[in-house]
Amino acid sequence: MDLEAQRRHMLTGAMYNDLTDELVQARQRTVLLTDEYNASFGRAQEERETILRRLLKSVGEGCHFEPVFRCEFGFNISVGDHFYANFDCVMLDGGGITIGDHVLFGPRVGVYTSNHAIDAAERVAGGCYARPVTIGDRVWIGGGVTINQGVTIGDDAIVGSGSVVTRSVPAGVIAAGVPARVIREITEADRTGFTP
Amino acid sequence: MDLEAQRRHMLTGAMYNDLTDELVQARQRTVLLTDEYNASFGRAQEERETILRRLLKSVGEGCHFEPVFRCEFGFNISVGDHFYANFDCVMLDGGGITIGDHVLFGPRVGVYTSNHAIDAAERVAGGCYARPVTIGDRVWIGGGVTINQGVTIGDDAIVGSGSVVTRSVPAGVIAAGVPARVIREITEADRTGFTP
Amino acid sequence: MDLEAQRRHMLTGAMYNDLTDELVQARQRTVLLTDEYNASFGRAQEERETILRRLLKSVGEGCHFEPVFRCEFGFNISVGDHFYANFDCVMLDGGGITIGDHVLFGPRVGVYTSNHAIDAAERVAGGCYARPVTIGDRVWIGGGVTINQGVTIGDDAIVGSGSVVTRSVPAGVIAAGVPARVIREITEADRTGFTP
Repeated sequence: MDLEAQRRHMLTGAMYNDLTDELVQARQRTVLLTDEYNASFGRAQEERETILRRLLKSVGEGCHFEPVFRCEFGFNISVGDHFYANFDCVMLDGGGITIGDHVLFGPRVGVYTSNHAIDAAERVAGGCYARPVTIGDRVWIGGGVTINQGVTIGDDAIVGSGSVVTRSVPAGVIAAGVPARVIREITEADRTGFTP
Repeated sequence: MDLEAQRRHMLTGAMYNDLTDELVQARQRTVLLTDEYNASFGRAQEERETILRRLLKSVGEGCHFEPVFRCEFGFNISVGDHFYANFDCVMLDGGGITIGDHVLFGPRVGVYTSNHAIDAAERVAGGCYARPVTIGDRVWIGGGVTINQGVTIGDDAIVGSGSVVTRSVPAGVIAAGVPARVIREITEADRTGFTP
Repeated sequence: MDLEAQRRHMLTGAMYNDLTDELVQARQRTVLLTDEYNASFGRAQEERETILRRLLKSVGEGCHFEPVFRCEFGFNISVGDHFYANFDCVMLDGGGITIGDHVLFGPRVGVYTSNHAIDAAERVAGGCYARPVTIGDRVWIGGGVTINQGVTIGDDAIVGSGSVVTRSVPAGVIAAGVPARVIREITEADRTGFTP
């Protein structure tokens, strides 16, 4: 299979071989392209977005990753408008990562859509399977959060710092912990009257 | 408001606009200055401290950050004498970070004084609020620890690796977990008779 | 004591002085050598392995660390064949780290064999003690996992993402959490029939 066929196969959730030449080379190109993006820090937003558009599947307006951004392939990542990732974001995007508008990531967030096979012999042979991660609009992911494969995080939700998200989080709540659990709903009482 | 007025406003704990030109530009300058510090690794301590003094609010003698140190502004960070941060320390210092003498950070410690607004509309509009973090003398923060806003860690305390510190930790104890809880007091029985 | 004598002393588990000129200089050389390794990304595997062999105690065939790999000394790290560490692996190897064949590390794994003294006065004086970490064959350590000193992880085991491993994990199980606990055994039912 060529790279595109492997990419589509991966997105089905079926087991795939993580060790093919095509995937190894794709990962290597992605490191070099993220190096290029990271090295462009401080240059014009337009120039930086041009690199992001080569790296990611789709990218909205006004997106910014603080250094150092790393991802596995990039070509399965879609981010909406005004996405902001603080320092040292890592995304393993074999299963697809879809992020809405106005999403904020704290420092050191990890989104991991790919798992190795559970069986050791299959794992050694390169067996992997991936599940998508979907993050709604206006979500805030706290610093040091890990998001596992197959998780959806609903609109307006907040995930507390240091959490490990193993199950989906509904819209409009605060979740935290290892594994992350819903702590409470966000309500009108959370409005402070802030205006810029 | 100019940058200094915004800095003072942030330190009051009131909601502030995270997206002003002044703050965005300050963050960018800080990345470039931490790049300069990180790139100076291996050069004379005096030369490195000169960079740190431009970066931080105040810095004691004999301080050292292993690569790669990142912070949001730097100008709200005070560190005492002989501070040592192992690899990949991240500090978001909008609310002020005060660190005593002889403090040790393991690798990958994150100190996050700034929170985004809980209400999604206010968050999208740039609403943030910050609370100070204060770390006493002779504290040891283990590897991979996250310290949330508003926390004080007392003298001589130890925080176990991988913990998320959401509430203050008293002096002279070992705390660990997510969220971190006091495990036990440190006593004379912990003395081993070590001399250098 | 010269560096080699200090290295052997450290491996006994006895208290040692972390602040000697020899150790400080060894750490500095190691940062520069890991910089060299990290900067060699994309070059021939043979060239990269030559750097790894200077850096580590022993290294098998086909090993690869994605950028950025960091370690404290390197000279106490033994890795078997086909070791793969994803982004931002950190190893503090004063106590010795032994890793088997076909081991996989997710992004942002930390292995910390060295602890500072519990007593604050001894800690300030440089007191540390180290315990080895041993990881068997075909182990998979998930993303963002912290492994503490003195831990052994048995063959074929899996440690879930974001876990903090404070006690040994037997062979053939999945462990996860903070602290990590055994969740279940891996059985024949985990075989999917995958072949590359």
